[in-house]
Amino acid sequence: MENKGLLFVVSAPAGCGKDTILGEFFKRTDTAGYAVSATTRAMREGETDGVHYHFLSVDDFKKKIANGEVLEYTEYCGNFYGTLKKSVDDLLEQGKDAVLKIEVEGAMNIRKKFADACLVFILPPSLEVLENRLRGRGTETEEKILERTAQAKTELKFAENYDYLIVNDDLNEAVEDLLAVFRAEKLRKPRREGILKSIEGEES
Amino acid sequence: MENKGLLFVVSAPAGCGKDTILGEFFKRTDTAGYAVSATTRAMREGETDGVHYHFLSVDDFKKKIANGEVLEYTEYCGNFYGTLKKSVDDLLEQGKDAVLKIEVEGAMNIRKKFADACLVFILPPSLEVLENRLRGRGTETEEKILERTAQAKTELKFAENYDYLIVNDDLNEAVEDLLAVFRAEKLRKPRREGILKSIEGEES
Repeated sequence: MENKGLLFVVSAPAGCGKDTILGEFFKRTDTAGYAVSATTRAMREGETDGVHYHFLSVDDFKKKIANGEVLEYTEYCGNFYGTLKKSVDDLLEQGKDAVLKIEVEGAMNIRKKFADACLVFILPPSLEVLENRLRGRGTETEEKILERTAQAKTELKFAENYDYLIVNDDLNEAVEDLLAVFRAEKLRKPRREGILKSIEGEES
Repeated sequence: MENKGLLFVVSAPAGCGKDTILGEFFKRTDTAGYAVSATTRAMREGETDGVHYHFLSVDDFKKKIANGEVLEYTEYCGNFYGTLKKSVDDLLEQGKDAVLKIEVEGAMNIRKKFADACLVFILPPSLEVLENRLRGRGTETEEKILERTAQAKTELKFAENYDYLIVNDDLNEAVEDLLAVFRAEKLRKPRREGILKSIEGEES
């Protein structure tokens, strides 16, 4: 009972290092698994079905929504993005924590459906640092950089609704923070209802 | 602001390995300090004033209570045991977390005074294991062992009021649990009110 996996959501504005942190996080833990999202957008070069996304046709995606197989989804630039119930259930049934990497609106939908889910938001040290990081990549136009910084500012307003806030100033520290959150969250009293009974119960 | 230390309380029934866990914990962290308790009981062989306890006369202890210098205290077997405000304040002012090792009633008193304090309870894997551990020490009479097990059972009822429950089944795991709790607790949203403002504020 105490070993049942939990549902964790990790969100962050673009440029906050979410993918790098999660990549490192999964190297250092064997109690959590990544619940791969589904999308109807076209597969890009270097992407693998079932690893980066579950790539579905619009028809299939809609069918899964109708069948209640999609936990949450959003439409963005004409494509669907969502979380398949099966991706999460498979992990939880293995006793693993399921990690969803989704944006703020999806996270709020998960919160509504699963009051029990634990929401983690990764923050940049400052909006200025974020802007400089995006600029430093050298892959985006100035317009895109300003657009992304503005979007980050909007997304930050949702951080209020998360359970944990981690600042990605130093990668290793941020990964250690995330590991600690996963470990400690499972020790919190509301998650341990069964343990006191089991301790007393084992007395014969 | 985010670096301000927190007040942590660690409680456990006798025989749960609280001292061993805390000893190991302090070896592995430099962000927390032990807030030494005060007592009016006589110093025992091997004890050092200011390390194991602050040893005070009854008059001094009562004076400190009257002056509001004692955060919480209890009387046990004719002696006073309590927490000096200064012990805690000194640590918090250094930006360290202050760790109080106190029994359940003292912990509930701390909770009443400091809603913000974080309470950690260390549990035995089962009452049976606890009883066997106490017996294994070979230092206590059978009567004392049964008395202690009964007391543990009473103390376990207070675990309900703690924030985190850690089971000491494996020493290293229990220490890692405690380290994770200290780390994660500071990342929890209610403790991070200032951070969102500072992130936006740094934008110029």
